[in-house]
Amino acid sequence: MHKNYLLQCHERIKPYIHNTPVLTSQRIDDMVGASLFFKCENFQKTGAYKMRGAANAIMQLSDAQRRKGVITHSSGNFAQALSLAAKNLSVEAHIVMPNNIPKVKQNAVKAYGGILYESEATLESREAKSHEVIQETGATFIHPSNDINVIYGQGTACLELLQEHPDLDVIFTPVGGGGLIAGSALAVHYFGSNCKVIGAEPSEADDAFRSMLSGKIEFNETTNTIADGLRTHLGDINFPIIQNYVERIIRVTEIEIVEAMRIIWEHMKIIIEPSSAVAFAAVLKEKTLFKNKKMGIIISGGNVDVSNLPF
Amino acid sequence: MHKNYLLQCHERIKPYIHNTPVLTSQRIDDMVGASLFFKCENFQKTGAYKMRGAANAIMQLSDAQRRKGVITHSSGNFAQALSLAAKNLSVEAHIVMPNNIPKVKQNAVKAYGGILYESEATLESREAKSHEVIQETGATFIHPSNDINVIYGQGTACLELLQEHPDLDVIFTPVGGGGLIAGSALAVHYFGSNCKVIGAEPSEADDAFRSMLSGKIEFNETTNTIADGLRTHLGDINFPIIQNYVERIIRVTEIEIVEAMRIIWEHMKIIIEPSSAVAFAAVLKEKTLFKNKKMGIIISGGNVDVSNLPF
Repeated sequence: MHKNYLLQCHERIKPYIHNTPVLTSQRIDDMVGASLFFKCENFQKTGAYKMRGAANAIMQLSDAQRRKGVITHSSGNFAQALSLAAKNLSVEAHIVMPNNIPKVKQNAVKAYGGILYESEATLESREAKSHEVIQETGATFIHPSNDINVIYGQGTACLELLQEHPDLDVIFTPVGGGGLIAGSALAVHYFGSNCKVIGAEPSEADDAFRSMLSGKIEFNETTNTIADGLRTHLGDINFPIIQNYVERIIRVTEIEIVEAMRIIWEHMKIIIEPSSAVAFAAVLKEKTLFKNKKMGIIISGGNVDVSNLPF
Repeated sequence: MHKNYLLQCHERIKPYIHNTPVLTSQRIDDMVGASLFFKCENFQKTGAYKMRGAANAIMQLSDAQRRKGVITHSSGNFAQALSLAAKNLSVEAHIVMPNNIPKVKQNAVKAYGGILYESEATLESREAKSHEVIQETGATFIHPSNDINVIYGQGTACLELLQEHPDLDVIFTPVGGGGLIAGSALAVHYFGSNCKVIGAEPSEADDAFRSMLSGKIEFNETTNTIADGLRTHLGDINFPIIQNYVERIIRVTEIEIVEAMRIIWEHMKIIIEPSSAVAFAAVLKEKTLFKNKKMGIIISGGNVDVSNLPF
């Protein structure tokens, strides 16, 4: 049932997403001693895989729900993705963003047709503002990562990767809120062949690593990482999937993240954001474990301020 | 005859090059008001189209010539390309580079197996050093752009683009030494359908623009442009081809080059070098002339120091 559900989800969202290219690099393969296949969601619409889950979640709503719009609070890629997915489906998207984030992110949401609301930076203020908008509009709240329809949508990136390369031994994804890795784990469970899923996380925001150890959802006390998409914690819907189907989580330092990002930029000539570099940093760190393996890496996004780089 | 020659050249070099992807961007299409197809030679081996011409030129040598190696003087992408192409064909590559260029470029040549010789920065010193090495080794000199085998090799990028999109109305390339645009012009002449070739050049190094006007090869008095691959002038082999088959040359300012580069980086998430941005800058500058056209752009390369960007 879930296997078919993932395929149906993919069919459903196809008109609204790119089947992104899978790139390889001989020099990086030589460096790692394995064959790497990079699924380039930095080339996805709005510059990140989030478009997949956003489109699927909106398409699962009833006509009555769609007429009242959707709402999320996000300062990152999901805000842009929900705005564009909603626009393409003729649905209104209400986006609550903290008032301290860069203007460029607010402008991107507006450019994709999102209706912007400012809140204070605290989670309480964001939730209060969201509640207020829901009271006014009746919009349906869509969580960026802890929503089963979002999770299935995100899993379609990994599904496409496996359709193109069915014999991968292991697939790496970064772990933030848990939507991408949970969806990828489902895709690998149903469509992989002896394939494992490994998550990668900054040591500075290692909630998922600790959650796997303790068996309950842990939170980040500090989030002092350049990988701004990975500062969030897991949720009660994606965590059980991760517990069941993810092999392990590898943690990497800030220096390892920046170095991995630079290698991808210089050798592959593609722009990836720090959160995406985390997965490749984990591969580099543990490369002796993966000698001669066929490895997939989900490059989650490419939204980065090119005027403000870490190198 | 030449039509077949280009196809044979493509078959010959295929094992040594990538058939690079052609990318599109809805946001850039909306910005220009036309459909743009970017042939991504920044993803080519060694990060630039130069690999094509280098491979073809070496493969046209006799066994006796191959045994004595090849030589060029270059501070840029052709040095790396000749080094790797030679290595892959089991031929020695002697590379003369001025002693004032960044160590990173020298190291790249060494990494690809080239044998490095340092000269002073002047053309006289480079030529003297090359002459010396030729006396010692008997190596065959291969010019980066003014060599008919190099020109045909470079033309295969445009050939691949036309094989994928046969109905392009116009194809833009940057113009430096003239090898890429001459090869592209031949490809369009033999395989295009009412397709025009337009060159793009920095105003700060507009030798090709002036050569087209005067009917003879003009030189640059200043080369004060960020597009470091385009500071050279045309040659007596490529110029007649350009005169016959290129529609016109559009000149762009340094500000236009940097702005075009930023747009490609931010919207397409690919790393292109300033010389490649020159072609897109010309499209942006003259976009009213190309409303609703199908336009190809050769993204010539992606070799840029990411620690030293113009934005």
